Amino acid sequence: MADPIEHFWAVIPAGGAGTRLWPLSRAGAPKFLRDLTGSGRTLLQGTLDRLEPLVEDRFLVVTGASHADAVAAQLPGLDPSAIVAEPSARDSMAAIGYAAALLERRDPDAVMGSFAADHVIEEPQVFRRTVAQATELAREDWVVTIGIDPTFPSSAFGYLHLGEAIEGHASGYRVLSFVEKPSEVTARRYLASGEYRWNAGMFVVRPTVLLDLLAESDPDFAAALRALAAAPDTIGEVWPTLPKIAVDHAVAEPAADAGRVAAVPASFGWDDIGDFSSLAALLGAGTAPRPRAVPVVLGDESLVTAVHSTGLVVPAAGKPIAVVGLDDVVVVDTPDALLVTTRDRAQDVKAVVAALKSAGRADLT
Amino acid sequence: MADPIEHFWAVIPAGGAGTRLWPLSRAGAPKFLRDLTGSGRTLLQGTLDRLEPLVEDRFLVVTGASHADAVAAQLPGLDPSAIVAEPSARDSMAAIGYAAALLERRDPDAVMGSFAADHVIEEPQVFRRTVAQATELAREDWVVTIGIDPTFPSSAFGYLHLGEAIEGHASGYRVLSFVEKPSEVTARRYLASGEYRWNAGMFVVRPTVLLDLLAESDPDFAAALRALAAAPDTIGEVWPTLPKIAVDHAVAEPAADAGRVAAVPASFGWDDIGDFSSLAALLGAGTAPRPRAVPVVLGDESLVTAVHSTGLVVPAAGKPIAVVGLDDVVVVDTPDALLVTTRDRAQDVKAVVAALKSAGRADLT
Repeated sequence: MADPIEHFWAVIPAGGAGTRLWPLSRAGAPKFLRDLTGSGRTLLQGTLDRLEPLVEDRFLVVTGASHADAVAAQLPGLDPSAIVAEPSARDSMAAIGYAAALLERRDPDAVMGSFAADHVIEEPQVFRRTVAQATELAREDWVVTIGIDPTFPSSAFGYLHLGEAIEGHASGYRVLSFVEKPSEVTARRYLASGEYRWNAGMFVVRPTVLLDLLAESDPDFAAALRALAAAPDTIGEVWPTLPKIAVDHAVAEPAADAGRVAAVPASFGWDDIGDFSSLAALLGAGTAPRPRAVPVVLGDESLVTAVHSTGLVVPAAGKPIAVVGLDDVVVVDTPDALLVTTRDRAQDVKAVVAALKSAGRADLT
Repeated sequence: MADPIEHFWAVIPAGGAGTRLWPLSRAGAPKFLRDLTGSGRTLLQGTLDRLEPLVEDRFLVVTGASHADAVAAQLPGLDPSAIVAEPSARDSMAAIGYAAALLERRDPDAVMGSFAADHVIEEPQVFRRTVAQATELAREDWVVTIGIDPTFPSSAFGYLHLGEAIEGHASGYRVLSFVEKPSEVTARRYLASGEYRWNAGMFVVRPTVLLDLLAESDPDFAAALRALAAAPDTIGEVWPTLPKIAVDHAVAEPAADAGRVAAVPASFGWDDIGDFSSLAALLGAGTAPRPRAVPVVLGDESLVTAVHSTGLVVPAAGKPIAVVGLDDVVVVDTPDALLVTTRDRAQDVKAVVAALKSAGRADLT
């Protein structure tokens, strides 16, 4: 186990509807509140489990007001003050920036790491070693990202373009730029070059560095966050006035242009479970030309009868399911809604959520 | 409407597990007890509705003892004595032969027609006109079958090979032989020749002719049936001793060899709903290269959200179902079991029933 890192705080943004994982993920019960790996722990619980050896009880979980009770119920060991409830969703800069402003006041020596509540990481020891290396760079005022060694030319992830190694840090590299999700052809070129890593959306930084970088592009925003941290009771009035912008655009990309971003490359298994095809892969369904001979099951395998089928079956309604003659199928049966699709079409599940909303069935989304 | 035909009796064998329609059809609730067309009437009710103008109340419904109560409940207008309960399943010769023996005693001028309880017929007037023609041939001691004009080279139905027209009967033809389900190639040759019709498994015959034909091949069997009809109380002892054989093999095929079988060709829409692909076609799903653009729904259409999908969806559990990116899919959701397959693999659904039985889940079959 890794040793705790003094003054290191984990900020956990717990948001996102996860519409591509409907009907497992709902607006009222998003994926971070679900056990999507069959581990017995939800993604949120898994995220805290993974970080606890590094931060002990130094957590801030930032979540929507409507999820705060569910988050507290899933984390009974967490001090209630560690849960920061957003009155409304205002994108990641507001959520993470507010956490930074709170920590800046609470602990002048703080280094914070931001880790989404709905990712899956397979080798927690490697993850923690990587994060520990990142904190060392962060103490020298770098904005530090984690760059995952790509295992295939994914067009579903963003990439980090790495430059030279940073002197005095065996594991740190300059980040030349952030790259949005590329085409598969471009992604193949990235892999061949050896200069690109998956952007896992994690970063480690001193709160003051983060807020000062924000102040360079939007001083009012940074000032508003710092004022709010000084008077948390005003959140009801202040929050709706904050800009809706992602931390990537507000801080990370300008900082990369300014040569202030570092990356620690790492090779732990990582996935953000963007859709059911990712979930199937994560659960071991394999991919063509080597799929697993039977569907993977998330839940009680004894409920599933499969004949000449591959893919993913989720018997979450507790009801027996038979699948006959379908390759790469996705069957998700919940108590109040059933989805049937294929891994190829997994991205289109969000169209169902849109269709249900326009049909007046927002209650199911 | 057709006029009633004096002394014409309808015998309705109501049996068969319909395992290829699992989970809609179960051992405890077979397909004849189900409304599979969305008409508001079960297949059994539809069968009697169709025949009532010809026979008025002259019905005998032969069914398993375990289904007798359900049959009676679905047919409240039927005299309870018209339901003949078989103590156990002993194939169609015992079921239909016993009905023949009962009718032979009850009405010496009887002509009986045997019509399965689980077929669908689209033009009842044409059907009744055809049956009326068949009764005329039956009064001259022919075993009369109905030969449906094939609309495509089906390999799922048996065929009748027709010979010459029967003198004095504009619509009657000699049947040279019964042919088991052919390959599709053979079926195409049958259609091209114009000499073959689908064997709809219906026949019209005088009870005495049927039993005398049986007596030619198995005199003990015919005698046992006649003795049973004279003493119905002995059914508990007699029934288990009766041979298990289909009426086709016991009587119809030998009678065809002996030149005793006639056919009345007809062109009414007919299907025995052998599997979910047949059911999809019956409900208007179309077939490649002209499928319907959205899945057909058996049940409440408002429960189904389909994105780029075709096939059949049955929301019998009353739960919303979303289908994304699957062609010719079959989704059957019932309160205690869910099936997902394709129209191509519809015949393999029986493998699920076998798998459930061997997994100790016969309760679901």
